[in-house]
Amino acid sequence: MASTVGQVIKCRAAVAWEAGKPLVLEEVEVAPPQAMEVRLKILYASLCHTDVYFWEAKGQKPIFPRILGHEAAGYCYISSLLSLYLSINYFQHHFTSASMCLAIRIVESVGEGVTELAPGDHVLPVFTGECKECAHCLSEESNMCDLLRINTDRGVMLSDGQSRFSIKGKPINHFLGTSTFSEYTVVHSGCVAKINPLAPLDKVCVLSCGFSTGFGATVNVAKPTKGSTVAVFGLGAVGLAAAEGARVSGASRIIGVDVNPKRFEEAKKFGVNEFVNPKDYDRPVQEVIAEMTGGGADRSVECTGNIDAMISAFECVHDGWGVAVLVGVPHKDAVLKTHPVNFLNERTLKGTFFGNYKPRSDLPSVVERYMNKEIELEKFITHEVTFSEINKAFDYMLQGASLRCIIRMDG
Amino acid sequence: MASTVGQVIKCRAAVAWEAGKPLVLEEVEVAPPQAMEVRLKILYASLCHTDVYFWEAKGQKPIFPRILGHEAAGYCYISSLLSLYLSINYFQHHFTSASMCLAIRIVESVGEGVTELAPGDHVLPVFTGECKECAHCLSEESNMCDLLRINTDRGVMLSDGQSRFSIKGKPINHFLGTSTFSEYTVVHSGCVAKINPLAPLDKVCVLSCGFSTGFGATVNVAKPTKGSTVAVFGLGAVGLAAAEGARVSGASRIIGVDVNPKRFEEAKKFGVNEFVNPKDYDRPVQEVIAEMTGGGADRSVECTGNIDAMISAFECVHDGWGVAVLVGVPHKDAVLKTHPVNFLNERTLKGTFFGNYKPRSDLPSVVERYMNKEIELEKFITHEVTFSEINKAFDYMLQGASLRCIIRMDG
Ligand SMILES: [Zn+2]
Ligand SMILES: [Zn+2]
Ligand SMILES: [Zn+2]
Ligand SMILES: [Zn+2]
Repeated sequence: MASTVGQVIKCRAAVAWEAGKPLVLEEVEVAPPQAMEVRLKILYASLCHTDVYFWEAKGQKPIFPRILGHEAAGYCYISSLLSLYLSINYFQHHFTSASMCLAIRIVESVGEGVTELAPGDHVLPVFTGECKECAHCLSEESNMCDLLRINTDRGVMLSDGQSRFSIKGKPINHFLGTSTFSEYTVVHSGCVAKINPLAPLDKVCVLSCGFSTGFGATVNVAKPTKGSTVAVFGLGAVGLAAAEGARVSGASRIIGVDVNPKRFEEAKKFGVNEFVNPKDYDRPVQEVIAEMTGGGADRSVECTGNIDAMISAFECVHDGWGVAVLVGVPHKDAVLKTHPVNFLNERTLKGTFFGNYKPRSDLPSVVERYMNKEIELEKFITHEVTFSEINKAFDYMLQGASLRCIIRMDG
Repeated sequence: MASTVGQVIKCRAAVAWEAGKPLVLEEVEVAPPQAMEVRLKILYASLCHTDVYFWEAKGQKPIFPRILGHEAAGYCYISSLLSLYLSINYFQHHFTSASMCLAIRIVESVGEGVTELAPGDHVLPVFTGECKECAHCLSEESNMCDLLRINTDRGVMLSDGQSRFSIKGKPINHFLGTSTFSEYTVVHSGCVAKINPLAPLDKVCVLSCGFSTGFGATVNVAKPTKGSTVAVFGLGAVGLAAAEGARVSGASRIIGVDVNPKRFEEAKKFGVNEFVNPKDYDRPVQEVIAEMTGGGADRSVECTGNIDAMISAFECVHDGWGVAVLVGVPHKDAVLKTHPVNFLNERTLKGTFFGNYKPRSDLPSVVERYMNKEIELEKFITHEVTFSEINKAFDYMLQGASLRCIIRMDG
């Protein structure tokens, strides 16, 4: 194999040419990484609602053509010499662990100034970054990096305002700085978490976004104690990850709230043991929960983004100690309204972004929790398709049939 | 001196006969304490806005005649035998510390079932209590006791629905379970904090309400770190106590926000080192503070109860880590409105009641912080009057001249 260092790589990518139209697998050119960037080979991607949301482009500025995708796992490599090393590595792993057979991949190319990533590293690209230098990165409490914070409107790389993707010289837009629906992609090195090389990439790819968002909201922000009661609003993948956080924290009552009762049966697998469908009551769900719990839940996690659910999630927590955490992204014109006495009675309302995880510093430890069998990712993975079938993943999500559909990039 | 155990005590009390009319010193009968109650001799009271608010009775149900007062310090004693012991004690203290000369007083009578208070104890009566048995008292996070939570509408004792005060047999209403504008009062034992007998009662009486409310809001709830920036909304006694909490916590910038610039000079004594008068700007004060601080204050504490100030206090904190704490009591119809993205950008909004202090468990330690010269109460005490001059204390407050006016009950 010839060296690709500093070279354009031609590969397959799924291009969204227009809002709401099926993605088209195209041969794209992927330019080499510039300073502080890395070029990754993506092995597995998974589809998240945010991809579908920006593909539909009903609410936001349409940016097309674009390569979507932001939940993924892959690696970086650099030259033919290295690929020999990798082949050996591949064999070693192949015979050590069956689930590893497809996971042996590393960062494709490493740009100037990148010191914490090297060829051979297994990585999760993340839609938000960690520069390790700004006030947010230096704060123990924040993960909202000033430099690399999520930007949904940007279709180019930060350093030079250019795209690294093109088709016959015509630029194609990036998405969330990740664009993982491509066999190769270029990502800012601050948006790449280096993980345990033994982790199965077809599972841990879901830690790039949805799982960590919900799980972190519970374990890092709501912080329920053992034996407590946690209400989870919205039983999609993020809500079920929040429930998984409650289960892992030892919550004894996990109350799932959803207007779609079809989700209740599946949610039982995630430790949700009581259910409330707001449509079954003619009074506010916060009153229903207060009655069920003798005054309110100890913690709540709101994963729908619906403004009424946000208000209910806040008002359903117990006075004196209740903490409500907002995760779901609201409509831009939504207004949260509540009586301030709800706060004065010692309730807390917090929001979180990406489960308060700093991508580079913290994601490796979430991978370890999976490796230690503390958290269960398998139950989130309901479907798997090959790259050439990627539009099926969209169908599953639109039908509400999937939690996570894994896309095998080599197929 | 004859024993007063189980006897009615006749003493002076300042009775509010009608809303807004000067209090009248009357001779009242104070019945003995019933089960779980104690009868206290009040040595010093101080006037708080809440007294004035319920005296004016502009917003709430008028309950008259009533004995107001809830910030105070006193003691309990029980019989002539004990008074001898006290006289000795008095002398000892008198010659040990000049400031102690008026402070040697204890609980007057101790009702059945009271185990944690004894004759001789120096105490602070508190408008809210701690039963040590309910879910709130058992929670480490809450101080909102189910049994003894503040009740502004109740003019009688909890146990039997009767008043312990009367004038010629006609009952007079209690206020907040404390009614400290009386030489003797009856209080539920769960609303009495036993404190260090060496503490000067003419100073620590302000810990019964206002100081602890503001100070605790900062140190127990906002928890600013050393070197941080804290915005305090409202520079009255509670706001200045919040500032004192910021000073003690090592905050380097304490920004005082008030529409009355006359308060700025005095506030400097309390560590407030920057000032914002919202009236000086034609844009929201949260924008002004964000500019001053490069993105927002690390913490804010809202002590006015004005709904716009509450919203500003929340929106002025830094994304990623900002925490806003609501202390001021809003109008009952007030609605807090904000864009939920302000939460999702990792801001926290909390409310507090009595600075999150559990009265019996925690107030003694606040007294110790004063005794250790960590906190400065003297600067809060701007006026002193005798009991017979109590209406002057109301005038000072209504004129905005006082922070705290101490009322010497023996004069
Ligand atoms: Zn940063
Ligand atoms: Zn996502
Ligand atoms: Zn209690
Ligand atoms: Zn008060």
